[in-house]
Amino acid sequence: MDKKVNIGVIGLGRLGSLYANYCANRLPMANLVAVSDVREEVAREQADQFGADRWYKDYEDLLKDDEVDAILVVTPTSLHRDVVIHAANAGKAIFCEKPLSLSIDECVEIKDVVAATGAFFQMGVMRRFDSAYTTAKEKIEAGVIGKLVQYKATSRDRERPALEYLRPEHSGGLFVDMGIHDFDIARFLMGDVKSVYSIGDVLAYPEMKEIGDVDNAIVSMVFEDGTLGAVDLSRNGIYGYDIHAEILGTEGTLQLGYIRETPIQVMKENQISHDTVPGFYERFEKAYIDQLANFVENVLHDREPSITVEDGLEALKIALAATQSLHENRPVELSEI
Amino acid sequence: MDKKVNIGVIGLGRLGSLYANYCANRLPMANLVAVSDVREEVAREQADQFGADRWYKDYEDLLKDDEVDAILVVTPTSLHRDVVIHAANAGKAIFCEKPLSLSIDECVEIKDVVAATGAFFQMGVMRRFDSAYTTAKEKIEAGVIGKLVQYKATSRDRERPALEYLRPEHSGGLFVDMGIHDFDIARFLMGDVKSVYSIGDVLAYPEMKEIGDVDNAIVSMVFEDGTLGAVDLSRNGIYGYDIHAEILGTEGTLQLGYIRETPIQVMKENQISHDTVPGFYERFEKAYIDQLANFVENVLHDREPSITVEDGLEALKIALAATQSLHENRPVELSEI
Amino acid sequence: MDKKVNIGVIGLGRLGSLYANYCANRLPMANLVAVSDVREEVAREQADQFGADRWYKDYEDLLKDDEVDAILVVTPTSLHRDVVIHAANAGKAIFCEKPLSLSIDECVEIKDVVAATGAFFQMGVMRRFDSAYTTAKEKIEAGVIGKLVQYKATSRDRERPALEYLRPEHSGGLFVDMGIHDFDIARFLMGDVKSVYSIGDVLAYPEMKEIGDVDNAIVSMVFEDGTLGAVDLSRNGIYGYDIHAEILGTEGTLQLGYIRETPIQVMKENQISHDTVPGFYERFEKAYIDQLANFVENVLHDREPSITVEDGLEALKIALAATQSLHENRPVELSEI
Amino acid sequence: MDKKVNIGVIGLGRLGSLYANYCANRLPMANLVAVSDVREEVAREQADQFGADRWYKDYEDLLKDDEVDAILVVTPTSLHRDVVIHAANAGKAIFCEKPLSLSIDECVEIKDVVAATGAFFQMGVMRRFDSAYTTAKEKIEAGVIGKLVQYKATSRDRERPALEYLRPEHSGGLFVDMGIHDFDIARFLMGDVKSVYSIGDVLAYPEMKEIGDVDNAIVSMVFEDGTLGAVDLSRNGIYGYDIHAEILGTEGTLQLGYIRETPIQVMKENQISHDTVPGFYERFEKAYIDQLANFVENVLHDREPSITVEDGLEALKIALAATQSLHENRPVELSEI
Repeated sequence: MDKKVNIGVIGLGRLGSLYANYCANRLPMANLVAVSDVREEVAREQADQFGADRWYKDYEDLLKDDEVDAILVVTPTSLHRDVVIHAANAGKAIFCEKPLSLSIDECVEIKDVVAATGAFFQMGVMRRFDSAYTTAKEKIEAGVIGKLVQYKATSRDRERPALEYLRPEHSGGLFVDMGIHDFDIARFLMGDVKSVYSIGDVLAYPEMKEIGDVDNAIVSMVFEDGTLGAVDLSRNGIYGYDIHAEILGTEGTLQLGYIRETPIQVMKENQISHDTVPGFYERFEKAYIDQLANFVENVLHDREPSITVEDGLEALKIALAATQSLHENRPVELSEI
Repeated sequence: MDKKVNIGVIGLGRLGSLYANYCANRLPMANLVAVSDVREEVAREQADQFGADRWYKDYEDLLKDDEVDAILVVTPTSLHRDVVIHAANAGKAIFCEKPLSLSIDECVEIKDVVAATGAFFQMGVMRRFDSAYTTAKEKIEAGVIGKLVQYKATSRDRERPALEYLRPEHSGGLFVDMGIHDFDIARFLMGDVKSVYSIGDVLAYPEMKEIGDVDNAIVSMVFEDGTLGAVDLSRNGIYGYDIHAEILGTEGTLQLGYIRETPIQVMKENQISHDTVPGFYERFEKAYIDQLANFVENVLHDREPSITVEDGLEALKIALAATQSLHENRPVELSEI
Repeated sequence: MDKKVNIGVIGLGRLGSLYANYCANRLPMANLVAVSDVREEVAREQADQFGADRWYKDYEDLLKDDEVDAILVVTPTSLHRDVVIHAANAGKAIFCEKPLSLSIDECVEIKDVVAATGAFFQMGVMRRFDSAYTTAKEKIEAGVIGKLVQYKATSRDRERPALEYLRPEHSGGLFVDMGIHDFDIARFLMGDVKSVYSIGDVLAYPEMKEIGDVDNAIVSMVFEDGTLGAVDLSRNGIYGYDIHAEILGTEGTLQLGYIRETPIQVMKENQISHDTVPGFYERFEKAYIDQLANFVENVLHDREPSITVEDGLEALKIALAATQSLHENRPVELSEI
Repeated sequence: MDKKVNIGVIGLGRLGSLYANYCANRLPMANLVAVSDVREEVAREQADQFGADRWYKDYEDLLKDDEVDAILVVTPTSLHRDVVIHAANAGKAIFCEKPLSLSIDECVEIKDVVAATGAFFQMGVMRRFDSAYTTAKEKIEAGVIGKLVQYKATSRDRERPALEYLRPEHSGGLFVDMGIHDFDIARFLMGDVKSVYSIGDVLAYPEMKEIGDVDNAIVSMVFEDGTLGAVDLSRNGIYGYDIHAEILGTEGTLQLGYIRETPIQVMKENQISHDTVPGFYERFEKAYIDQLANFVENVLHDREPSITVEDGLEALKIALAATQSLHENRPVELSEI
């Protein structure tokens, strides 16, 4: 066969390392050629582990590497703007992990640079490649459940991530860090959002108060077409990593997601039980790979990005409106953001 | 064996007729002795069908019947105040179907008369006797899921009831007619509510606009202790009568309810399917009977009512606050009601 | 309405007592008028408890009672023949709990007497009134799964009943005591059986060896029309009372039964669990009542019995063939029995 | 990083092609270096498609290729003996797809050559790498369900494969072609089998009579330790590819397998439904890959084979005993085979 896409991965945290692995071992049309991380030894080790020829401490050096066709931006969110703008100017195809940024201004700046440079830019939100959501989209478009009426989504971490990770100045807070997936799927399946109202509090992990974020929240949403939505978020899904959703229409409803991990049910004295999905990696492994494969295919065949910079911007708007609603205890229109 | 409780049923609509049947055939400690309905022939027929000795057109005559120990009030809601106050003054033990009234003022009046007369008064909200909710309460009190964090509840009719029935001046509107069950269970399992915010619209049945009510709604709730809640209501649960709930705590979650009716799964070409619960009667038959049995036992043994007039008042407050929130598009404090 | 059927219950063990209760409190068309039990005080107490006017120590006295229209035979199996023949000669309508007898000769004798006297006789096998099986029969007859191919059934007690109860000379052994339900349903849904082959052993309760019966067994069956069947039986369904079945056809399959008791799912750290059906009473309460209601209706309206003495005989033949196969380790033709 | 294992794939039918793909794209420690198939153009195309340097028409040429460390034997079963013996003599590490052979004599011959040459030989039976079965084994060994009592397994093709494929002279017949997986898992989880009894017939596809095989069968099994088993097989699992099993012990039971494919449930008027697993590839993709990864790791690190030639021989014995039992309508001891 012909040409493959040469990939450079920027940022080798938990997710960046997974992506490097997928590029090396799971994507037939991709070559992992370079990695970068500010932690020099991590960059070197992972280059070695995944068979990348080159590693860099400074992502700017990676962007100067002519062998690199396309980059995956998996840095802390605060660096997205800089990396993406550099990469767009360097003519690299760009895959940027969600959230696009923590600031609307930065999103707009990125959008403008992408437009000006004509760079290929695709957002990373893996759920859009999971069969629960892709099949739901097909069924909705085929009219299986009639006219849409309600969107409901639940996201629960199994346990509180590290406080350092959760600080709103880094993560964007619960609505940006966690809710953005549900907001993106809301737009994917239902359409644009008109207004939101949020409630939330520190209910499970008192130490969250120190960092100024809540650990549980519920967001009501009204879509532009008048349909209704509710997204509930929790850091204490202690029983497992629970991601599910429902789309109610006038002719039926679709329930999406699952919680069982292993196909084995244990039946003991007066009790039936089974295990649960432990985390995002186990639940969405295939979707993570499929979204990278989709990015690679799009780059290879000069197709449009499957998820655009505007999608990244719009999802952030919902998350920020939800955050503002919580602080002001009133419904917030998206147009205010 | 000893004394039984002699029951009179006031109001012989769909539910009143069921209650008459249960008193006659399913409650060993009850005698159905009298029924009343403004439709004379209905009263006569049902007295005959269920073996009641006497029937009345006018409920006041039934209340004068010395053989009657206790009454079930299953009239249209607009008559609850009159019937209950008469009955309290007549010294009858009273079981009153939800909602207590459509007006807070009437509720307070009823409450005062019940207090003044010392009448035995028990609210009818059958879900509190369903094993989903009673078992959940036990598990919550036993600490199975730790400290409570979120309450989620869904109620869906299979299809829109008759418009005449739905008119807000009769039914109280979606939040009073349908949501009151979920609001009552919210208090039963979680505690008192501090504030609510509602969204809702006519999304499935355009003719609802004529009567001035919505067919879909979502209510966010903050409880007095800071925990969170969301109740979603729909008139178009076309796939079945779907009543479920979830209580999330810091150490686990409880999922309540079921949708399958018959214990048979049909597996055909590339599809697994099963039927669904068609309506409230099939889903809650046992709870309906158990709540009447509980009323009879309480009367027989001079026990306190299991569900008080205050419970009826408080559930109505939440429903009215939710209604007001929808109209004013702002969070409403229960203290405003 | 008009006449009710006056019922006498003969035998007041666990099941007889349930039946007396149902006749008194759950069957609008039945009057419980008399009970009998060799344990005089039991007969008296239950007559009192369930409001029967008369009680007898000797069932023959009950059969002489002119007020009694119909009897329920719930004695130990060894007495079925005597009671049924007396009752048939006394002109009573007869409901006889399964198994009809432990001996083919007795079954034939009963059959002949029933024929000669023209007595109304209906077998008691409650599963035929459970919605799992009645719905399956409807779907099979409607052609939902095409031509039938395989029958699979599982019956498991939660734990070993008392050894005294299990002695084969009383219970008939595992295939007669427990399997007869699955064999009866096999005939109900599939048709007559041609041959069986059994394996079985004492695997869970070593003390079963003392009484000469096995605690686990699997029976292969070939039906007259060539379709296949497998029934597995166990005394150690420690996780719950598990009764399920499957009918595979050329166009699909039907799975029957359920194991969850309460509509509540408990989700704790890395584990989802729910409770289970504890025993036959909880699983089949409605079917028990419905089969008695059906008997009463049949008697009242001079209808044919829903389950005949021949049905009782044929189910026993399968159970005895299965027993013989186990002893001789060879397939046994029903025609040999 | 160190050495990889250079793989040659012999036989490029449906499964061989999958294996070539996995070696090329999914196994980090393997290189696909050569393929062979009697259909020259298939060999060439797949070598090209999966990036193998060399392709051969004649497998003997592949075996002479010094670059090839290890081979996967995915030819028609009738060639297994020749290929394996050649490969053993050529010093290649061997992975041989099930069944080992259709003849006990050939199995013994293979076993002897493997022993004499000291060749590394591993059977291919992917279910042993599926999490349902591996987790079951762990739980059994941890004593979760106590002492084992019954093994039950069901295998159903969604529809009849091509008649040409099914001819017993090629496939070995239903028990060898399909049942061998359930027999292998029986040994994996329970232990050795003592005797079997089979029933079976042509019930769904009359044309099966022409080729002399049945399309439905049930096999009763007694294990050496007295525990019981039942395996049912069908070519007409029209609703989906249904592979499940259960292990009953004295302290609980384990239910293995699943039938839902996509994590989406469709709820339409009075009916809940979901899709099903369409075939072996979708159900066992991960297990197929994991078994090859395991083979590669074993070869790389000089470990013992995870599944031995004896395992292949013993599973075949059970399948042949089941076949003989069907023909002779009697229980057959494994010692007869």
